[in-house]
Parts: sequence; structure tokens; C-alpha cells
Amino acid sequence: MEELETEGIKTVYSSQIGARIGASAHSVRKDMGLLGDIGNNLAGYDVSKLKRHIHKTLGFDKIRNACIVGLGKLGTAILHYTRFMGNTFRIVAGFDNDINTLEIIEASVDVFPAYRMEEIIAGRKIEIAILAVPKSAAQTTAERLLACGIRGIVNFAPVVIRTDDKNVFIRNMDLITEMRILSSLISFDANTETPEISL
Amino acid sequence: MEELETEGIKTVYSSQIGARIGASAHSVRKDMGLLGDIGNNLAGYDVSKLKRHIHKTLGFDKIRNACIVGLGKLGTAILHYTRFMGNTFRIVAGFDNDINTLEIIEASVDVFPAYRMEEIIAGRKIEIAILAVPKSAAQTTAERLLACGIRGIVNFAPVVIRTDDKNVFIRNMDLITEMRILSSLISFDANTETPEISL
Repeated sequence: MEELETEGIKTVYSSQIGARIGASAHSVRKDMGLLGDIGNNLAGYDVSKLKRHIHKTLGFDKIRNACIVGLGKLGTAILHYTRFMGNTFRIVAGFDNDINTLEIIEASVDVFPAYRMEEIIAGRKIEIAILAVPKSAAQTTAERLLACGIRGIVNFAPVVIRTDDKNVFIRNMDLITEMRILSSLISFDANTETPEISL
Repeated sequence: MEELETEGIKTVYSSQIGARIGASAHSVRKDMGLLGDIGNNLAGYDVSKLKRHIHKTLGFDKIRNACIVGLGKLGTAILHYTRFMGNTFRIVAGFDNDINTLEIIEASVDVFPAYRMEEIIAGRKIEIAILAVPKSAAQTTAERLLACGIRGIVNFAPVVIRTDDKNVFIRNMDLITEMRILSSLISFDANTETPEISL
């Protein structure tokens, strides 16, 4: 919807949305239906109305505070990258347990030693954490974050974070797994039958 | 399976695999079934046999060459990160269109100006590309990579790469989307009814 607005498009059809996001018009209509009453699809969707409706329904109208835990090369890159995140999130803190790392980092956000995590997360009302620590530290760090009241974690460590807490949400962004999935997909060439393995 | 081997575990049950990866024993058995004949589940799976079988079936026994396109902060971080990728992939080239970037980069792999992409990708038999270019350049760069014969792309740009080619595979790793998904999940608190929106 933001793209469409930028392009000055006022009305959009489900087929057009589908073409942009790589989904069928049918899928788009189905998901739209789940958003509740959003106007007559036959006449197309009103772009700005639909954007507001999606924002509200999916909770994007609330700006959430986030932090990055682990300020190695990847964490630092994410820190810089997230300057362009738009208006749904605000990275308000970075953490690392290495004081030297904290001293040399050129960050536009405040960075803190890891021992201050509990205090800063509570004080700055941080709800989401981006985890960029080494694999070996990922699970324990995640548990500590959840104990601090963090509700959502985007995990970049190549390990599956486990939790029994149904009130928290973890998204794994594991490059190695993605690379392996690609490798499998390439192995099963389009000419052979694709196995229905859930990737 | 690699984790289990490291821990010296010889036999594993689907419930144990499920617990490690955050899936049900039922899902594990279902996926195992798709891998073909891999021994009697009642007696547990032989870890090293299962590992070899998965590697072979999913095409991990072939080491594939990969490249990173876009050597900004994120691309460079990935370049360093991928040193630890294990033995399924080999990053054999990095590309950037900024000569100054290429001159100052401290990389353990060869880096080249973008105009040499076609030549290097063909010469080094590169099959997979990690795309870390700015959003505005992502689609055109992806198309150029596919024209070079790249079969799989892991895309880090916050935009959906589109292709009509059924023989190539694209995996999007969009941090902003992941953050937004988390935000939605948090908004729909566990106490309220979770909508069945396909995330």
C-alpha cells in the first residue's frame, strides 16, 4: 500500500496486489476477507483506506520499541540497516557484553553493556529484540530477554530458539537454513517431481 | 543430526527431533516418510545414517558455489558470517559496483566490480547468490543474476523479487516484514482470538 501511495495509485484490485507480492488474486481476497469489512472488491480497494485498515488490524499503528542484542559485524550491520525501517519500529538500544565493542561502535542509538539489559528493557519499554549473538549464546540470551518481558524475538543465530511460553513469538532468520533450502530446491530440478517436504 | 552427532547421540526418536526443532513428533514422522525408507521408527533413527540420507536426498552432498552481491555493511557482515557456514556451501566471490568499497574491504574471498558478474559467475560455476543491495536495485540485480544462470537467490532487500522462471528459487529474508509479523502477533494477545492470517 505504501508503494502504491508513492506511485500515486488510488484504487487497486486484488490481482494487482497479488502480482506485486507474488501471490494469487484468490489468496489476496481470502486474506482481505479475514481483515473484516474493507469495501467492495469489485470496485477495487481504496489504497489509503486499506492501508489504514491493515495498519490498525495488524497493530502497526502502535510504534514499538526494539533493541539489538549482540553488536558483532551482523548486529552492527542490522543496527545501521534499521535506520530505514520506517515508522512502525524504533530501535532504542543495542547491547553487547564486550566493553571494547561498545566503545568503538559508531551507532546512532544508545548502546549498553549486557549486564544492563534488564534495567534498560524495562525502562525503555522495549517489546521486540533482534538477536545477533553467536549460536552458542542464543538460547540463554533469548531466555534472559523473555524473562525481561520481551514479547518477540527475531533470531539471526543459526539455531532454533525454544520456548514454552505461548505469549511470546520467535521468528528465525537463519541464512544457512535458507541456503540449504535453495540447494535442495535446485537439486530437485523443475523436470523432476518436487517432493512435498514442508520447507 | 549434526548437533546430535556432536553430543555423541547414536539413536534418536521423532519426538526428540521434534523437541529440538520446535515441531511435533507427528510432523517429523510425516516429513521423514517423504524421505523414503529410512529404517524403523519404533526403534528410533540411526543418527549418522539419517544424516547421510537427508544430505543425499536434499542434495546437501553437493558443495555449491555462492556469491554475495552488494558489499555494504550488511553484505560485508554476511561475508564474514558465512565463513562459518559449514561444508554445504562455499562463498567464492563478492560483487559491488563501488570500486572504493572493493578497495577497502577486508575479505577472505575474492571481490570484484559488478561489471564482471557475468564472467565470474560463469567461470566459477556459481549457483546461488546472496543479494544485499539497496531496495531500489534489488529487482534489476536479481534479473541480471538470473540471466547469468544463477539458480537460487537469498534476498535481504526489503522488497519481493519477482520472476516467472519456474527453474529458479528465491527466498526473501526481510527483517522489516519479520518485525511487522512480530508486532501483529503481539497485538493479537494470547487472550484474544488469533486471526488465521497466513504469515
